[in-house]
Amino acid sequence: MKIDTDEFRVRADHKVSLAHRPTRVEPVYKSKEQYHKILADHIERLNALQLRLFADSRLAVLFIFQAMDAAGKDGAIKHVMSGVNPQGCQVTSFKHPSATELQHDFLWRTTGNLPERGNIGIFNRSYYEEVLILRVHPELLQAEGLSGRAGTGEALWEGRYRSIVELEHHLYRNDTRVVKFFLHLSKEEQRKRFLERIDDPDKNWKLSAADIEERKFWTQCMDAYERCLGATSTEHAPWYVVPADDKENARLIVSQVIVDTLERLKLRFPKSNAETHTELTKIRAALEAE
Amino acid sequence: MKIDTDEFRVRADHKVSLAHRPTRVEPVYKSKEQYHKILADHIERLNALQLRLFADSRLAVLFIFQAMDAAGKDGAIKHVMSGVNPQGCQVTSFKHPSATELQHDFLWRTTGNLPERGNIGIFNRSYYEEVLILRVHPELLQAEGLSGRAGTGEALWEGRYRSIVELEHHLYRNDTRVVKFFLHLSKEEQRKRFLERIDDPDKNWKLSAADIEERKFWTQCMDAYERCLGATSTEHAPWYVVPADDKENARLIVSQVIVDTLERLKLRFPKSNAETHTELTKIRAALEAE
Repeated sequence: MKIDTDEFRVRADHKVSLAHRPTRVEPVYKSKEQYHKILADHIERLNALQLRLFADSRLAVLFIFQAMDAAGKDGAIKHVMSGVNPQGCQVTSFKHPSATELQHDFLWRTTGNLPERGNIGIFNRSYYEEVLILRVHPELLQAEGLSGRAGTGEALWEGRYRSIVELEHHLYRNDTRVVKFFLHLSKEEQRKRFLERIDDPDKNWKLSAADIEERKFWTQCMDAYERCLGATSTEHAPWYVVPADDKENARLIVSQVIVDTLERLKLRFPKSNAETHTELTKIRAALEAE
Repeated sequence: MKIDTDEFRVRADHKVSLAHRPTRVEPVYKSKEQYHKILADHIERLNALQLRLFADSRLAVLFIFQAMDAAGKDGAIKHVMSGVNPQGCQVTSFKHPSATELQHDFLWRTTGNLPERGNIGIFNRSYYEEVLILRVHPELLQAEGLSGRAGTGEALWEGRYRSIVELEHHLYRNDTRVVKFFLHLSKEEQRKRFLERIDDPDKNWKLSAADIEERKFWTQCMDAYERCLGATSTEHAPWYVVPADDKENARLIVSQVIVDTLERLKLRFPKSNAETHTELTKIRAALEAE
């Protein structure tokens, strides 16, 4: 089953209104069984594609996940990427930057975790935090020790969007594909999920008072996302706004986009050329003569 | 089904004779179906344990894989660790060191890839190469620019074993468990697998003339492994010599050791104490009042 994901893609230079983009759509599955069947099918294809990506070893792919708390980033990564060989897939979660990281430009700390050729990289949060949480809480900029050369207010954010777009275009030219997911959750669904985390003792550790505090900035957060998505979705590195109130449906959309991205790379196992063929023939003779 | 893996563990301060350790044993599975069933059971338990490790977030676990080419390191990692959430599991493959890495002590380059608390790390090859391939090909030491202070010949290797044992003991004291696998393959089985890689065009990329060349050093390699295993298997960081001529059986032994290692940590989800309980009650009230 092929899910049409195009409606969730943000067109380049397109103004984004999150209020006009759904947090819930008609699910692509009709039953739990069908959900598991579609997901298993996507994972099987992803596995085959990942092996080719690894063998081909000329391209890397980076999937970035951004969202409000409890939108299902961790769950999507777990359910879609479990089943993929972890040897070719690195997930990096970005938390509070260290003092050393703050002494560098805002793109520096994520760069070391970009996937190497042949690999899939997953960023759970990313340099996008620098135009999202930082935009909502600009007082955090003080810890970054900026000289003022990057400007202030709108100029600062425009400069950051530009740096990000240019980085991602550079990555594209140098054989890393970047695709970005915003898991679009409603404020009401977040409330329900937080309450579930309180009700389940095994999930208590996932919740802190700071998460609740952040709900007060919901409107500002949506505004920061809208500006960011509009400014940084490009042909080379598109954003997908994935309706996330239904976790299972969100995972199927995400896995479809991941499979499509890899399929578009037209990966093949390296073919033996005349030279390697001659070498292999020699090796075979040597092994058979032992 | 619980597999007894104790016979494969190398006792501390025990002289190792690889000729006396089997490369093939009576398999623990009776059919392909049973193999898949046992592996699926191990993976399910591993998944549950990994979630606890992540939630508990106080301990890290590192599994190191070493072996001759085609012994099944990559396959074991793929089949045992696929199905585990890649967000809590990082696999690092160590290839030729860079010029910068060679300018550091021999433990330096792997240190940056040690797993953080809450995570499982997998090293596909490791600092052990420094007492294995380097011992077989001591001319490679020249690139490491040693001053001579580490000694030469036996003294150099003894110093390296000591550094490794002390590092692993340090890691143990600081909450990282290290467990090491040597996949023990026979020379004849390697020959068969190399021939299979020539016969299957989709596997040609896995083979190079250098792999065949290395077969000439088989005896020296086994000698280097025996010395290394004897000198570096400790109570805190044991080696397992896993019979590897039967790939499936090797994977079941490896997955059993991994599950046992995590079970011994007695991991639990963090419990709410009185303080967090009060906090959660407040959060619930705030959410319900919205």
